[in-house]
Parts: sequence; C-alpha cells; structure tokens
Amino acid sequence: MARAPDIQMYEVSLRDGLQNEAVVVPTAVKVALVHELVAAGFRDIEVTSFVRPKWIPQLADAAEVARQLPRVDGVRFWALVPNPIGLERAVEAGIEHIATFLSASNTHNRKNVNRTVKESVAALKRVIEAAKGEQMGVRSYVSTAFGCPFEGTVDVARVLQLSRTLLEAGADTIALGDTTGMAHPAQVGRVLEALTQGGVPLDRISLHFHDTRGTAVANALAAWQFGARRFDAAISGVGGCPYAPGASGNACTQDLVHLFERMGGLQEVPSGFAPVTGLDLDRVSEVGLALEDALGHQLSGRYHQFYKGHRARLAQSA
Amino acid sequence: MARAPDIQMYEVSLRDGLQNEAVVVPTAVKVALVHELVAAGFRDIEVTSFVRPKWIPQLADAAEVARQLPRVDGVRFWALVPNPIGLERAVEAGIEHIATFLSASNTHNRKNVNRTVKESVAALKRVIEAAKGEQMGVRSYVSTAFGCPFEGTVDVARVLQLSRTLLEAGADTIALGDTTGMAHPAQVGRVLEALTQGGVPLDRISLHFHDTRGTAVANALAAWQFGARRFDAAISGVGGCPYAPGASGNACTQDLVHLFERMGGLQEVPSGFAPVTGLDLDRVSEVGLALEDALGHQLSGRYHQFYKGHRARLAQSA
Repeated sequence: MARAPDIQMYEVSLRDGLQNEAVVVPTAVKVALVHELVAAGFRDIEVTSFVRPKWIPQLADAAEVARQLPRVDGVRFWALVPNPIGLERAVEAGIEHIATFLSASNTHNRKNVNRTVKESVAALKRVIEAAKGEQMGVRSYVSTAFGCPFEGTVDVARVLQLSRTLLEAGADTIALGDTTGMAHPAQVGRVLEALTQGGVPLDRISLHFHDTRGTAVANALAAWQFGARRFDAAISGVGGCPYAPGASGNACTQDLVHLFERMGGLQEVPSGFAPVTGLDLDRVSEVGLALEDALGHQLSGRYHQFYKGHRARLAQSA
Repeated sequence: MARAPDIQMYEVSLRDGLQNEAVVVPTAVKVALVHELVAAGFRDIEVTSFVRPKWIPQLADAAEVARQLPRVDGVRFWALVPNPIGLERAVEAGIEHIATFLSASNTHNRKNVNRTVKESVAALKRVIEAAKGEQMGVRSYVSTAFGCPFEGTVDVARVLQLSRTLLEAGADTIALGDTTGMAHPAQVGRVLEALTQGGVPLDRISLHFHDTRGTAVANALAAWQFGARRFDAAISGVGGCPYAPGASGNACTQDLVHLFERMGGLQEVPSGFAPVTGLDLDRVSEVGLALEDALGHQLSGRYHQFYKGHRARLAQSA
C-alpha cells in the first residue's frame, strides 16, 4: 500500500536550473521534460519565469511553455514573476501558481533587481495581492536567507520580518533561499527555530538549498530533523555557477530523494517517522540523463553521477 | 587562543585515494604532498599500503615513501598491511602505525582478499598481536559495515562482533567503512548505537564514508550528532570508482572540514558544543589543487570545486 508522501519536493530545474545555463533549451524539449517530471511523480514544478525576455534569454519562451503544459489533476505548475507586468503575462498564458522573489540582504537585492529590499517588498505586496485576487497560488522566495555573498551574515530577525510581511500580504509559502550555498546544518536549525517561534508556520516554509560547498544534503537533513517537510531542488543539480565548472548550484533532486527514500525505506529513523517523497527515483534519474543530453554537458549531482555509472554497467553486462 | 581540536580527521587520499587512480604518482610527489598535509595541520595520514606491489602498482613504492617521511612531533603516519609479510616490510621501512582490513560481508571479503571473513579474522589477529608486540599503533577497517554491494544489508550484530574481536586482539581503533557509499544518516545513528551499547567505545570508532550517492556529509553530520569525533576522508574526494567518471569515492576532506569548521565557527550548535578540526581549510584546499595537478584530471569534491572557482575569480580580479 502506497502512503501519502510526507516530503514535498518542489522541482526548480526548468527555471532556476536553466536560467544559469549557457545553452537555450528548445521549448519542445522543456515541455517533454515537464511530462517526464510529472510521470516521475512530481506535483510541484516551477516551469519558467516571466521576467523580461532580454534579461534571461534561456526562459524567453515562458508564455509558449506555459501554453503547452499538460493538465494533470493534483499537479501544480509554477512560474516566477518579478512585477505586475510579469504577473499579467503569466495570467494570460494560463499560469495559476506564481513565485515572487526578493533577497534578505540589500546589496544582493540591488544587484539582482536594482531595488532596495524595502522597494521590493512594496512592489511584491501589490503582485501578491493581485495574484490572490485571481485565486492563484503564491510562494515567495526570500533569497540570501542564510548569508549574502556581499554582506556576509544576514540577520535572522530580518528574514523573519520579511517572511511575516510576505505571508501577511497573502503568500502561501515562504521559500528560504540559500542562494550561494553558505548555510550549514547548525544554522539551519537556528533559522527554522527563529522563524517558527516568530509565527511562521513550519508547513509554510520550503527550504531552497544550493550545494556550492557540499552542504546541501546535510542542510536538508538538519531541516528534516527540525520537522520541515518541504524542499526545493533541481534535477541533477543543474544550474551551476558559471565561474566554477562542475560546481553545483541547486541541491540535486536525486540526492535529496535518495536521502529521504533510504531513510524512509528502513522504517527506522530516530524520530520513528519515516519520510517518503512519492517519487520514483529511477524515473527521476532518467529525467536527469535526458536533461544532460539536452544541455550537452555533464551535470554534477552526486546521485546523478552514480546513476550514470550504474546505467553504464548495466549496458556493458547486457 | 587556539583550542585543541575535538574533531580528528584521518587523511586517506594517498592510500585509499591513489590506489583507485589510473595514474601512478611519483614517489617524490607523494612525499611533497605529505609535507603539505602536515603543514595544513593533519596529524593522522595514511600514506601507503604494503600489499603485494603487483596488486596495486600505484602504491608499489610503499617502502620508499615510508623511508622519505618527515619526522614531526605529534604526527602519525599510517600504512595498510594485509598480512605478516606486509607487516614485516612496513616495520623494515620504519612504519610505526598500521591499518588492517577485512569486510563485514563474506562475498566482498572474498572478492577483495580471497578469504572468508573467518579466515581474515584469524590472520589479522596474528598481525595485530605482532604489531602491538612492536608497540605499533593499530587501526582496523571493518569494510562494508553499512551495506555490501553483493549481499545488500549487513547485519549490525556482525559488525559489532567483528569490532569487538579486533579490539580484543589489540586494535586501538575500528574504522567503519561505508565502502560503496550505501549508508544513510538514520542508519549511521542506529549502527553507532548498537556498537556503543555492545561495548565498543565511541572514541575508538572512526567513520569512513564514501560519497557515491551524495550522503557522505549528511552521514558525517549524523555521526557527529551521535557524538562521534573521528572521521576518515580523502583530499578532494580522490579515489572515484573507475566505472563512474566524476563520481566520488571517498568523502571529500574539504567538505567535512568546511562542515565542522562552519558549525564550530558560529559557536552555536544544537549541542552547545562547537566542533573544530585544527586544520587550515585554505591550505587543505591548496593540497587539493596540487593533487589534481599530479593526477591530471578534475577531482569531484564539492568544496574542492568551489575553491577552484574562488581561486579563478581571485586570479581574474588581480
């Protein structure tokens, strides 16, 4: 008997992954990947971004991707929107779930969207309220929540205040972004404690880790130990930093799914609570191979690499 | 004021790493790497193996490496020995600390050393007793302690019994090997609990993880949370499986050092106990660059990759 998944994976490869890739993936390939992700069991997939096409040419086909999405019961497709114009384009294209973004640190926010955090909050409030007026689902990223590459430490009180403001504006979920992979497990517990004690419900937080320094899986473990059950990740860790070939950007989906399924499979975890993701790890891994083919270069996720070796050995022995 | 390190890192790159590499590294380069490792702060370095040279040509210069080791107060150099002949060669070459090995699972042990586990235990008892008779330090690997690629699950009672037998024979330390990266964090806690409850002191256990499926850092975190403070790792994760290009074999030393130093640096960890390794992470990372140069191909450790990108940016901006 299958049980309802208690870990909710949110797939960001097609947006956060592809926007950091040099290659522009054709619309038809993106849509085919969406179908594969749905078949592998994903229920939340961030498919594109309605930023101005010239900013991110990799996602310039946002409206086209949105229009070609399948309709599947229980599957939610998400699109990033930066402002009211992006929201309008997303609505026109049939998108029903949006993500907004800002950074917790001013320097990063200014470099990313050319606004102070205060200005971003004011603008996003209007986007969120308009989206909720259309009965859309809304998640709001709070980036650099665990550290800023320019400012260093980010005050957790600031992350709490921003999270509360975004929830009050109507956001359903806060995605805490470890944008440049600075978080460590002890800090993860500390931030989650501050946020939940400050009134942000744990089931409305998703953890968005990057594996820049090798801590993504350990950070996910620490968050899971704290009680968090929602995680963002990208197939095969796609989206590495351009300045570090082979380095991973996003947490690798397969790494996290393997972690949680292995811990769940034994039915013997410290809390007595076995996590499962509702995902088929082999099928997820096959999507990773297809994505690697589409991009034409090796992807860095650990489990992805393992699975490639496994497949190669099967082929040799066949 | 520097405090005494409470995390003890045991460096295996020159043995477990190099024996899985296609390239034979010249003796002089190995010795130069040893000097760099000592300068970076390592106190326990496994430098070679006295197996029959034709089995592992990469380490055929074992005696020469041993003879050229520096003498540094407080630094212990370790060599793997498979049998009494290997022990004799190690002693002749001036080695004072040895490591023995067997697998917890019969199939793996037979494929590795062509003996049953029972036969290995009998042989290793003689090696350990002889080594202790010479006042040598002895660590004993119990490989496949968290799972066997041929047999699957390995009974923890078997791991406990082997560990006790080896300690009773005189071994100072048991190194629990996750030889093919099958361990997961919940299991790590379970195995450590069984061993310590069964009479194996926690401070005589070292955890030897492999990062095949991306769990090495999370497993180290779980072991640390349980109270373990001794970890094996290899610079830059050297020693990947030959069938999976880019896949990591050993846990990457820099990944673990970064994890522990970051958690310690904040002085705010869940246990109230801040771990430090006594290592200089930048210098450790520089050894990784030197090792990569010596091998002539990219190494896969996450923090290693990050550090390379960091260095490249520094060079650009200079």
